[in-house]
Amino acid sequence: MSGTTKLHYLDDLYVGQRFVSGETQVTEDAIKAFAREFDPQPFHLDDEGAKATFFRGLAASGWHTAALTMRLNVDGGLPLAGGILEMEVELTWNAPTRPGDVLHVESEVMEIRPSKTRADRGVVVALSKTINQRGEIVQALKANLLVFRRPAA
Amino acid sequence: MSGTTKLHYLDDLYVGQRFVSGETQVTEDAIKAFAREFDPQPFHLDDEGAKATFFRGLAASGWHTAALTMRLNVDGGLPLAGGILEMEVELTWNAPTRPGDVLHVESEVMEIRPSKTRADRGVVVALSKTINQRGEIVQALKANLLVFRRPAA
Repeated sequence: MSGTTKLHYLDDLYVGQRFVSGETQVTEDAIKAFAREFDPQPFHLDDEGAKATFFRGLAASGWHTAALTMRLNVDGGLPLAGGILEMEVELTWNAPTRPGDVLHVESEVMEIRPSKTRADRGVVVALSKTINQRGEIVQALKANLLVFRRPAA
Repeated sequence: MSGTTKLHYLDDLYVGQRFVSGETQVTEDAIKAFAREFDPQPFHLDDEGAKATFFRGLAASGWHTAALTMRLNVDGGLPLAGGILEMEVELTWNAPTRPGDVLHVESEVMEIRPSKTRADRGVVVALSKTINQRGEIVQALKANLLVFRRPAA
């Protein structure tokens, strides 16, 4: 997983700005390991058991897709100085993540709201789309991020 | 982790209905292991490194809190027949999860919308509050869940 390395302060961001992450492949083992720990439902644990369910085959937990999206964004997909500080998010899962899928994240700055009370920071609304190797958006994440201004020299 | 065992179909749910999950304790090791895999930022990885950051000490990734919330809900916290099928969620993180914290989830049915086109299902809006041992709400999760009706006998 790789991405741009320049870290952006609030001052460096503009509405419409786009970022693209590196890629990550999701293995069947990783899907099952995440599910055993955090989301042990039949459609996330076992291919046979998943066939008769809503998902019609093994699918990653949506929270696994969300966690992988975070990893891609931390690894340069969303290069924010001070880190990725999410306060509030809206998540939509549009399609399942399947064993072998290769995911990447495309993000866009939707809104920038400088704080009215604290001059050193603001809220940035970013939309991160998690996309598989077939070009399908498997997850859309709208996040309110706390972003700091560049410290005075 | 435990909870009620009766599984609820759409027919069994009503607005205002409440469910309470079992508890889970979040260890420092678990916080760091999740962070290494999914959210490797200093404030989630290392107590020393976290002191100078926004979090002022080691804090779990919000996605870790979200994943633990899912586990508590799957383990009886949100006892839905057919499983917990989230299509869309809104998440707010209000306070950090710290090493040693004990979390549980309190959920409430906010809205029930039977499908207009498919008689066997509906959307249920549930609010799940993840609460620590001090009674602080660390996360609020509003989820649109796909819930099925009881199959005809």
